[in-house]
Amino acid sequence: MSHKVTPESPIGIFDSGIGGLTVVKAVQAALPQEKIIYFGDTARVPYGPKSQVTIRKYAADDTAILMRYQPKMIIVACNTVSALAFDVVEKACGTIPVIGVLKAGARLAVQATKNNRIGVIGTQATICSNAYAATINRLDPETQVFSKACPLFVPLAEEGMIDHPATKLIAADYLREFEANGIDTLVLGCTHYPILRRIIEETLCPAIRIIDSAEAIALRTRELLEESGMLNNTGEHASPHLMVSDLPQKFSRIYKLFMGSELPDVELVEV
Amino acid sequence: MSHKVTPESPIGIFDSGIGGLTVVKAVQAALPQEKIIYFGDTARVPYGPKSQVTIRKYAADDTAILMRYQPKMIIVACNTVSALAFDVVEKACGTIPVIGVLKAGARLAVQATKNNRIGVIGTQATICSNAYAATINRLDPETQVFSKACPLFVPLAEEGMIDHPATKLIAADYLREFEANGIDTLVLGCTHYPILRRIIEETLCPAIRIIDSAEAIALRTRELLEESGMLNNTGEHASPHLMVSDLPQKFSRIYKLFMGSELPDVELVEV
Repeated sequence: MSHKVTPESPIGIFDSGIGGLTVVKAVQAALPQEKIIYFGDTARVPYGPKSQVTIRKYAADDTAILMRYQPKMIIVACNTVSALAFDVVEKACGTIPVIGVLKAGARLAVQATKNNRIGVIGTQATICSNAYAATINRLDPETQVFSKACPLFVPLAEEGMIDHPATKLIAADYLREFEANGIDTLVLGCTHYPILRRIIEETLCPAIRIIDSAEAIALRTRELLEESGMLNNTGEHASPHLMVSDLPQKFSRIYKLFMGSELPDVELVEV
Repeated sequence: MSHKVTPESPIGIFDSGIGGLTVVKAVQAALPQEKIIYFGDTARVPYGPKSQVTIRKYAADDTAILMRYQPKMIIVACNTVSALAFDVVEKACGTIPVIGVLKAGARLAVQATKNNRIGVIGTQATICSNAYAATINRLDPETQVFSKACPLFVPLAEEGMIDHPATKLIAADYLREFEANGIDTLVLGCTHYPILRRIIEETLCPAIRIIDSAEAIALRTRELLEESGMLNNTGEHASPHLMVSDLPQKFSRIYKLFMGSELPDVELVEV
């Protein structure tokens, strides 16, 4: 083991930016006694359009920042890193377990579907990488995956336009094709999308089950900690320790939108 | 002079990303005989939310990349650099003249307004910097400036949603306040916005004059080259020489949207 861990050790979570806060919120809700350390690489966001070499270097940096806190596990809340650099994180973590949003969302979707038709929405980079479809098909080769990039959902979520008529029109455009292809399960394959969940639900046929990868990873985290006897039963609910590589003006507004509470102290970390 | 220039020397243009292509298009239309070298720092876009120290370093890098081509002038097509690091570019250029979108747009707006009430729209970072208002007020302290950030216009332009009903709803929301404050001139203070010009015009009262900072800088470029005897009267119309620091998947689609022609060869430059 790379360092000694106890049930009281923190859980480290990172993302390319602030989207991973939906993962922090879901883990906190599922496991309120756990200490959480979050790093958002806000100086270098977005990772999606960058080259794989660059993304792998960034993933190593992000992991190193969290490892200073001797976490008992690492959650990769970034779909791009989950898809293209998961092995880099695993290597840097030694025997500390690592889980990623991509596989957690894919697993839960495969468990949920009854007709083996799963939809996936995400950023252009995530959808083009085909990582969700590949992961779902490794878990169940019989399942058909229908993917759709929804590039405006991130800026709409960040602007807090969670019930604007324009967002409804754009959601209707993006999600129309899922009516025709008869999916019964839709994966929100981007950590920003839970913010728009209500509009997505209202747009889709009500029979479609929505898989929020933030919730999926929270479930998986609980399972893993239980299995390894590392669940913290004595901790007290505390704000996550937040680190970012740049502090954008809108950070405090977005934190409130994503987390539903005021921004606590934030540590600025150089990358 | 930092290097010997002739009328045949190229014009160097840079931006933090691809928005500056609207400037390339406007300069090309106004001065079809000029050679244009463009650098878009697509690996490090957006500059707006970054710290001033970082932006100044990037501005120096961008200028150095263009200076390798011994240009006769440099156009700063990036509003953030125009606002926060113009002096860095000037210093790196020696006696080569430098002009920026911000001042060119502000000058033309001040010339155009009859009632001394000017509106400015731009990204969150540009509007928060207050740079347009400050520049307009240095040119004419009597003019009142009304500024509004329109953060969704960049992603809507990049998605090519130039006549989507959702874009109309969002434009109506953003531009509503300009009805009340009686402006007669509106500056498009972001190089992406000319892509949405038609929707912006349809949303505003028809009497409002729109100042496209890309067109403003093309006019200013012609003036400067004429004054200095550096106008190229013998060159042949050619595609711009394009350099980027990363090649996003959507680059070719966006190039076509911005320039109205197929993407020529692009050189990848390390930053």
